[in-house]
Amino acid sequence: MAVYTEVSFEALEALLEHYDIGVPTSFKGIAEGVENSNYLLHTTKGNFILTLYEKRVAAADLPFFLSLMRHLAAQGLPCPLPVTNKAGAATASVNGRPAAILTFLEGLSLRRPQPVHCEAAGEALARLHIAGQSFTMSRPNALGPSGWQALVEATRKQADRVQEGLAQLIIRSHDELRARWPETLPAGVIHADLFPDNVLFVDSAVSGLIDFYFACNDALAYDLAVMLNSWCFEADGAFNVTKSKALLKGYRRRRELDTAEVEAMPLLCAGAALRFTLTRLYDWLNPDQGALVRPKDPREFARALRFHLSVRRAGEYGL
Amino acid sequence: MAVYTEVSFEALEALLEHYDIGVPTSFKGIAEGVENSNYLLHTTKGNFILTLYEKRVAAADLPFFLSLMRHLAAQGLPCPLPVTNKAGAATASVNGRPAAILTFLEGLSLRRPQPVHCEAAGEALARLHIAGQSFTMSRPNALGPSGWQALVEATRKQADRVQEGLAQLIIRSHDELRARWPETLPAGVIHADLFPDNVLFVDSAVSGLIDFYFACNDALAYDLAVMLNSWCFEADGAFNVTKSKALLKGYRRRRELDTAEVEAMPLLCAGAALRFTLTRLYDWLNPDQGALVRPKDPREFARALRFHLSVRRAGEYGL
Repeated sequence: MAVYTEVSFEALEALLEHYDIGVPTSFKGIAEGVENSNYLLHTTKGNFILTLYEKRVAAADLPFFLSLMRHLAAQGLPCPLPVTNKAGAATASVNGRPAAILTFLEGLSLRRPQPVHCEAAGEALARLHIAGQSFTMSRPNALGPSGWQALVEATRKQADRVQEGLAQLIIRSHDELRARWPETLPAGVIHADLFPDNVLFVDSAVSGLIDFYFACNDALAYDLAVMLNSWCFEADGAFNVTKSKALLKGYRRRRELDTAEVEAMPLLCAGAALRFTLTRLYDWLNPDQGALVRPKDPREFARALRFHLSVRRAGEYGL
Repeated sequence: MAVYTEVSFEALEALLEHYDIGVPTSFKGIAEGVENSNYLLHTTKGNFILTLYEKRVAAADLPFFLSLMRHLAAQGLPCPLPVTNKAGAATASVNGRPAAILTFLEGLSLRRPQPVHCEAAGEALARLHIAGQSFTMSRPNALGPSGWQALVEATRKQADRVQEGLAQLIIRSHDELRARWPETLPAGVIHADLFPDNVLFVDSAVSGLIDFYFACNDALAYDLAVMLNSWCFEADGAFNVTKSKALLKGYRRRRELDTAEVEAMPLLCAGAALRFTLTRLYDWLNPDQGALVRPKDPREFARALRFHLSVRRAGEYGL
């Protein structure tokens, strides 16, 4: 999580001269966001987030991410809205890093979402997919199947140090998934990382969708697979089908799945689990000394991966 | 700095059942505070800070710190006010750690305070000392001279790895300061860590004094020496006497220094510089793997220490 670049009040003042968002009244670094440094900024005109993009977010991708948030917000999705400066630009440079100011969204993310939250979050994902259909920019999924090979190579030799049998699980599932991966499912803009961390709630209603820095074009149903992995497993590793049914019900209220999407769900879920196993394992084996928080345990998604590989039909997810 | 204990929304909700401060609307971990985990909490009734006290703050000291903030706030000082729960308690337990909810203060800390800020901060320190005279609890200064010996022992062997000659500087200055340390100066409650980080400003007025977790009873003038060290050196190591004059002028507007205090200032400044050299050196040599931010460079205060040891009379500080 969050490499932390310090921003002085003086640097903030210099930045804000270029914006029309009032005078700062409070400015705090927040321990949030997987890839970037974030500050919560109160001004006389409202609350904002200042994000400094660290090395993992390519500056060249920022126009895609920021334009997407603007597009989705214009369609009524509760996303942060990038604030443009007096010259009309949505990005700036702070301490040598690309930076952006976004509107602040109220709401709280949940550690243990209940079925009612899963349903609301599933519906929000479908709304995102529908609103994204009219977005004209595109970005490939760097962490889709074409990106897995390099991560497998970078982690396979040390994987068993983390868990006995992990290397074999990764290699075997990677081979199988690459061979069988569905390439013709309905596609569009996906969030690709809609974990409970990235959905804000006020009571049981979704008040915010955040952290669009993995967004890309890919199969829409893959985004559902990411959510089935991140919202529906209990702490003890059990898959909670009540939650998955609620999530899918919420999604299908706005967008129906076709037969190919339903049938592909076990594969897509296994692929999403492999993707998070690989990236967490890589970060675990190559910790960033400057990172704010220790890497997350890759074994959580290895366990989910084993579960999905054992699923024989989509009905087991409540589909 | 800041070991980071994660607090889930669910744990927050359970905590807030015991308080009467409204419903949470936002909750963010903030990268602030040297010793603790801090969260910024927005509720329907206002903004608050939730602090979890990590291992360096002894639970037994919390009543002193929290009562002191309450006492100073009641005297009109702009300190955070501990919020009591429905049972009247100012502390709670969160994730197994002692915790407190404090009112949030607007304002920004400055990286490069100007003389006008030094003057306002000096005046605020004098107000703190005066208001503290009627506070009845007491706490010894664990990082005063009696605490230095253990830090010298723990760091002397490795000090030269950080900077050539640092071990000799520490040992020599420690011996000299212990032999000559003034024991009969006017004493009372001191903040003991009033760095620019811990003073919030709105424009050039002080809007907040925060982070009272080193507060203790000691010589009042020692608190000024801490500020001369932390507010009046430029990034290149130069002592800025314009800033020190402004700081002292602000202080003396509210509380005059007696002759003994003036004469002791070079020694007190060297003592404060030694204290921060020792604690930073210790943290540098013994980094906490769970810490949010890398230890601060001890050489900054070693340089200040050399400066103070060369000062022959208090007039060099603008006294």
